[in-house]
Amino acid sequence: MSIPAIASTRNDALASLLDNAINNKTKPLGSLGMLETVAKQIGLIQNTRVIALEKPAILVFAADHGVVAEGVSAYPQDVTWQMVENFLARGAAINVFAQQNGCALHIIDAGVNHDFGPRTGLTDRKLAHGTHNFAQQPAMSSDTCATALAAGMALVAELDGNVVGFGEMGIGNTTAAAALMHKLTGIPVAQCVGAGTGLSADGISHKQRVIEAAVALHASATEPLDVLATFGGLEIAMMVGAMLKAAERRMVLLIDGFIVTSALLVAARLQPAILDYCVFAHCSDESGHKKMLDNLGARPLLQLNLRLGEGTGCALALPLLHAAVNFLNQMATFESAQVSEKSE
Amino acid sequence: MSIPAIASTRNDALASLLDNAINNKTKPLGSLGMLETVAKQIGLIQNTRVIALEKPAILVFAADHGVVAEGVSAYPQDVTWQMVENFLARGAAINVFAQQNGCALHIIDAGVNHDFGPRTGLTDRKLAHGTHNFAQQPAMSSDTCATALAAGMALVAELDGNVVGFGEMGIGNTTAAAALMHKLTGIPVAQCVGAGTGLSADGISHKQRVIEAAVALHASATEPLDVLATFGGLEIAMMVGAMLKAAERRMVLLIDGFIVTSALLVAARLQPAILDYCVFAHCSDESGHKKMLDNLGARPLLQLNLRLGEGTGCALALPLLHAAVNFLNQMATFESAQVSEKSE
Repeated sequence: MSIPAIASTRNDALASLLDNAINNKTKPLGSLGMLETVAKQIGLIQNTRVIALEKPAILVFAADHGVVAEGVSAYPQDVTWQMVENFLARGAAINVFAQQNGCALHIIDAGVNHDFGPRTGLTDRKLAHGTHNFAQQPAMSSDTCATALAAGMALVAELDGNVVGFGEMGIGNTTAAAALMHKLTGIPVAQCVGAGTGLSADGISHKQRVIEAAVALHASATEPLDVLATFGGLEIAMMVGAMLKAAERRMVLLIDGFIVTSALLVAARLQPAILDYCVFAHCSDESGHKKMLDNLGARPLLQLNLRLGEGTGCALALPLLHAAVNFLNQMATFESAQVSEKSE
Repeated sequence: MSIPAIASTRNDALASLLDNAINNKTKPLGSLGMLETVAKQIGLIQNTRVIALEKPAILVFAADHGVVAEGVSAYPQDVTWQMVENFLARGAAINVFAQQNGCALHIIDAGVNHDFGPRTGLTDRKLAHGTHNFAQQPAMSSDTCATALAAGMALVAELDGNVVGFGEMGIGNTTAAAALMHKLTGIPVAQCVGAGTGLSADGISHKQRVIEAAVALHASATEPLDVLATFGGLEIAMMVGAMLKAAERRMVLLIDGFIVTSALLVAARLQPAILDYCVFAHCSDESGHKKMLDNLGARPLLQLNLRLGEGTGCALALPLLHAAVNFLNQMATFESAQVSEKSE
């Protein structure tokens, strides 16, 4: 397994062409705000003045976490597989929003602690029945971590669209994500932990202590891939691989909430230019997400107090990406519409 | 012309039913954030547990403003009619976003300073070739204002959908809206004025002085309809009537940016319960909009640094309203999906 090389999208000549195209549209300068930023970014990613979003897809990676044995989640571990069943039955929020906004949905078993058997609509990439409990030992071996990365890359290599969103399901994975965030940013654990699916204040304190103890136990893990193997999840590791491959293929990456952004943190430590390819869908209500986004210099499109995961933020943000593409492709210019320009 | 009576949507029994329905969906409690608030609000507006958005429409009211003679806009007055032509040719931002999101668009000439003649796609409700210059005299007579309100009501009486967004076009109308905001909220003029389509700092200062002088000239105007006739625009007055009728018909009102919200300020002073029917699409970058929203206790869905008007924020927010309706109607419950509930 080798990490894909990711090139910066920087291209000053194209950037200037895109700025001109955006500024000549019949609207006051800059008045489409973040949509203008996104349109330009997509142009730089696609390396063209004529941008298009093709076959958007959301990949939802599911896996279980050994650390739930420490009592860090408000829901029992069985909810992971039960929610995968719910995805397959099209009853979850992500099913509803993906269908509404014309987005294909891929459900991937990266390591759920349940035997689904062969199932229509489920992509079986199970590497284990969940991770080990990182309060006692590394969540996975470096070999397993590398296999997960490679599996994520292979999945994205097969996609035929040019925009991919990331989602996840895994009881306990805000604990893994908070540990990754602490290790990769240096932000104190207390500012990385949150309520997850709905912990009480006491529950959050306990989660913090579990992470702090584990961080002390695994003090030697400092390199991004070591940190990922030690504290991550199989769904997180597979997502890291998928993100790297998507950027290598110059796709638009749609980043969801706290757990997905923790995977991006790992990917960005490996290949910083990956950030050029990322559109941040939303700022989650999960406590550490805003600081995580700030650490990445990211500005999210939506602030709706979501904290559901599954890629729901990606599906909800997708119409704004279409709006960015459509205004650039379809709006008249001052010249074509014979509208007078600014008079001062 | 009489002002429609608007009933509060408050209904504790229905609210409780809606809360239960929302909380039983397969997601952590409250995790869909503002979408849950909107779903409940739509239920209360439509007075049912089974909500639906039918035939969404955006009404774009266009008119000219005599106060542009004072040099308060970065663009010449001709841009108003030129942009109306652009709307009819489907070249403007609102055309692109309305089409993308399946929203009918009605372009209404409330008082543009131009003779269009009979035109397909243009609803002719022209009451004058623009308002008078409110720096010298009231923008319109109370009769004209009443006629504009009645015209707006009549337009909405004919709509066959149940969700209506409001947009506007009118060079100079941020000046009118800032004056309305000041008079109806008491917020100092300096905090009500902004760059509009792109004034310099000097331009903004000049606009502020023009408004302050006019406010001194028309000190006797204090009642909402007097204030509207004195400082408003024909598009703003027609929108006030349209909003009142839409709420009377228990439609969902989608509120756009600074000018549209200034019309709502007038309507809400006449019938405070209208706010129960309003979903606020976005917070504009026009300087006073956030304070205006705060004054109304409003929380907007989007913060994208838009400042374009035309109803663009409404069109962009519409998919989020659909998402609110769809999750309530389509998601599985914990029981139906056999997903375990919270364990603590």
